[in-house]
Amino acid sequence: MQAEYDSNNIFARILRGELPCFKVYEDADTIAFMDIMPQSDGHTLVVPKEQAVDVFGLSEAGAAAAIRATQIVARGVREAFQPDGVVISQFNGAAAGQTVPHIHFHIVPRYVDQPLRGHARQQQDMGVLKQHAERVIAALAKLKG
Amino acid sequence: MQAEYDSNNIFARILRGELPCFKVYEDADTIAFMDIMPQSDGHTLVVPKEQAVDVFGLSEAGAAAAIRATQIVARGVREAFQPDGVVISQFNGAAAGQTVPHIHFHIVPRYVDQPLRGHARQQQDMGVLKQHAERVIAALAKLKG
Repeated sequence: MQAEYDSNNIFARILRGELPCFKVYEDADTIAFMDIMPQSDGHTLVVPKEQAVDVFGLSEAGAAAAIRATQIVARGVREAFQPDGVVISQFNGAAAGQTVPHIHFHIVPRYVDQPLRGHARQQQDMGVLKQHAERVIAALAKLKG
Repeated sequence: MQAEYDSNNIFARILRGELPCFKVYEDADTIAFMDIMPQSDGHTLVVPKEQAVDVFGLSEAGAAAAIRATQIVARGVREAFQPDGVVISQFNGAAAGQTVPHIHFHIVPRYVDQPLRGHARQQQDMGVLKQHAERVIAALAKLKG
């Protein structure tokens, strides 16, 4: 379980605006965007802006901000996709399934009788991801009132 | 995704002291104990004291307290079991794998080349769980200094 931060990891580059993402939410401490290799429709990532590899390196304030954003975005995902369940997960270390060395929380909708697709396996069509992001953004706006 | 709270669920009864658990940690807002059907050695649960079925019903303060305790306990589990990785997960709704209708966070150590056992499938020997709890308690005391 490596802990040294690589500032050129893909999420660091997204946070710096060097790479695009289908963003659905942002606040002072986090951003959230669609996973481009979704395990199910609506699979969204919440990424703290703090430079931390994993939950062990994240500050207490950073963790509080991350779970706060995760709650908010999960409500939007639920509203947008009406899944039967929602998994929230956070992987620390390659042995745990972590593929990007910058802490992130997965919001994965679950649908009855629909098995998950593999983690970080197959890229979704960009047009579909864009539509899905728009659905989450609209749901978040609706929930905010 | 049902949201009505059943005050006789097994975690509510553990919180009231009506059922035993192998407790490793407690603070004002949470308790943590060994999962009796562990997916891997060291599998620990963090349970907010707040009466909430899932992450959607949990208050913002409750979520912050839960992730704070999860960080603390995960550090203890890591110290005690020296896994290759750690998964943190939180299931909302039966379709997402939630088996007890009171919000909880799983801390699941991952070991290279050792697949997870099924979720909520097979009960671990009580003597083993007691030893594992003692290892986490000792690690938390050591980390606290």
